[in-house]
Amino acid sequence: VRVGELPTPALVVDLARFDANVALMGERWPGESLRTHVKAFKSTTLARRVAAAGHPSFCGATVRELNGMAAAGLGHDLLLANEVVDPARLQVLAGLDARVTVAVDSDATIDAAAAAGIDEVLIDVNVGLPRCGCPPADAGRLADRARAAGLTVRGTMGYEGHVTVIDDRDEREAATSDAMRRLAEAHEAVGGDVLSGGSTLSWDLNHVVTELQAGSFTLMDTEFAGRGSPFRPAMAVLGTVVSVNADARHAVVDVGLKSLGMDHGNPTIEAGKVWLCSDEHTTYRETPLPRVGDRRLVWPAHIDPTVALHERMHVVAGPLQTDEGTVDLDADVVEVWPVDLRNW
Amino acid sequence: VRVGELPTPALVVDLARFDANVALMGERWPGESLRTHVKAFKSTTLARRVAAAGHPSFCGATVRELNGMAAAGLGHDLLLANEVVDPARLQVLAGLDARVTVAVDSDATIDAAAAAGIDEVLIDVNVGLPRCGCPPADAGRLADRARAAGLTVRGTMGYEGHVTVIDDRDEREAATSDAMRRLAEAHEAVGGDVLSGGSTLSWDLNHVVTELQAGSFTLMDTEFAGRGSPFRPAMAVLGTVVSVNADARHAVVDVGLKSLGMDHGNPTIEAGKVWLCSDEHTTYRETPLPRVGDRRLVWPAHIDPTVALHERMHVVAGPLQTDEGTVDLDADVVEVWPVDLRNW
Repeated sequence: VRVGELPTPALVVDLARFDANVALMGERWPGESLRTHVKAFKSTTLARRVAAAGHPSFCGATVRELNGMAAAGLGHDLLLANEVVDPARLQVLAGLDARVTVAVDSDATIDAAAAAGIDEVLIDVNVGLPRCGCPPADAGRLADRARAAGLTVRGTMGYEGHVTVIDDRDEREAATSDAMRRLAEAHEAVGGDVLSGGSTLSWDLNHVVTELQAGSFTLMDTEFAGRGSPFRPAMAVLGTVVSVNADARHAVVDVGLKSLGMDHGNPTIEAGKVWLCSDEHTTYRETPLPRVGDRRLVWPAHIDPTVALHERMHVVAGPLQTDEGTVDLDADVVEVWPVDLRNW
Repeated sequence: VRVGELPTPALVVDLARFDANVALMGERWPGESLRTHVKAFKSTTLARRVAAAGHPSFCGATVRELNGMAAAGLGHDLLLANEVVDPARLQVLAGLDARVTVAVDSDATIDAAAAAGIDEVLIDVNVGLPRCGCPPADAGRLADRARAAGLTVRGTMGYEGHVTVIDDRDEREAATSDAMRRLAEAHEAVGGDVLSGGSTLSWDLNHVVTELQAGSFTLMDTEFAGRGSPFRPAMAVLGTVVSVNADARHAVVDVGLKSLGMDHGNPTIEAGKVWLCSDEHTTYRETPLPRVGDRRLVWPAHIDPTVALHERMHVVAGPLQTDEGTVDLDADVVEVWPVDLRNW
């Protein structure tokens, strides 16, 4: 199948860019020091390619992601980087044929993990993002409680997600250092070998963690790429122009907010200016106007929720565009990567 | 299964409110004058309940929606209220065991429909929303072209979606009337029995169309309900509190932007104030703080993309909340409605 024959909307991936992104990340975070976050791409096929590049450790945000990774034989070292108190799902995790570690940040999550038969945990520390994680000063007490409950405490994790919204690199570095100071203090009280944290945007700013949790770097998106990151967008949504309005001078592609994560705002169409997105459409301006049936690449502002809306990714060797900047309709789809880790 | 036992995040539906919404809409738009839009809920089980209430006509935004409706025996009168130029998918539509009508707004879409063996079309007229639809002055010419290509032209459609963002009811009515004047003018040149248009927000403002296209009224959402609509929100995302931060005075539920349509902004949690949503979490403030393991209803701002993220809806007789405003954990799930019309 060639790109020009794909039913739209369809996720398309530039394999050369993807591989380059993984190689670049691997220079700074070799081997197991990279804990790739599957929430960004939700695909065991993609994960297998990262593992083949020398990075066998992964984390996920949902139990289903970890279940799927274990079933795919990718259970070397899996971290649920999230709090779960559902006894049934924790028991499933405990029974996986995989090394499973679970984040805990409270008495309740420790008790739930221990009751379900989980072996290993990380103490999740709040380092500034208003989300999960215990206060740093409480980390030591929680580690003691976990050990008393029979759990092995591998160390700590802390996600400095609040720094990703800082545009200025120096400010971002200072905020990262501040967050990691809190993590390191907590870790002193907790002990263990693992300090886990980070993100694609702090990959070269975080000098404290022993392993980087990052996922966006693989497929990348316009929001993160716009912040001076060297990783390049490797995934777009392929669309077809279905309507052209010569009076109003706009065109409409069949890519809308049901095929795009919209929490970071509108997507980008290089040939024109995006005006609005509705359920199944993006209206944009392009001069001269395209023709009905033409194809365009719609670059999402946030890849994680975009991927989660699709059943599969269509992979081309790359690039997705010709030298003239148009979609390479003749490019062969060399692989199909199912998005098999969707839902919860 | 009771609501308190559902794995979260999970869509939950209040059947009493749903039925009341359908009954209210049916008073103004009885029988076939209501063409329920399946894009809002993507479930043949839900659609069957609307049909059983006396409304056998439906429209959809994707070919997959129509395929699924036909396969479910709900093919009495299906309209693809969207432009498609994909020959393969149009041929599938033409072969369905169903009455299928397709929207066309250009020479290209007419030619594609005729080539695929489609029998019936509506001329889609742009009535002000910057999206699909031909200029009103071009509608007659397109109808002639369609008839010359062997297609039956049932009439026109025009979606006044641009009025849904107008808060003031009088202004919304004036804008609706203006849009429908354009549709009526186009219809004079086109002919046929059908003038199709409308939305949940113009249900009592549109006096021109012969059939109303509306879907949101069934499950409703906070965005539309906030505009003075009498339809009541009947669907929420059930979440579990997974983390509580006593220092920062916030709590975190396991409902995030992968289980919520975010294009209309943050969801609502009645017990508190929503602060931010990330992939799998919503951080909010509630006083006094809840406990880890507590359950909360997260009301989405936009139901259409929210439903599209889930595999099923869990239906309770209703209400979802107790008299004290907390989640009714003892409510039985009386039906499960698969979201079987997802993707494209």
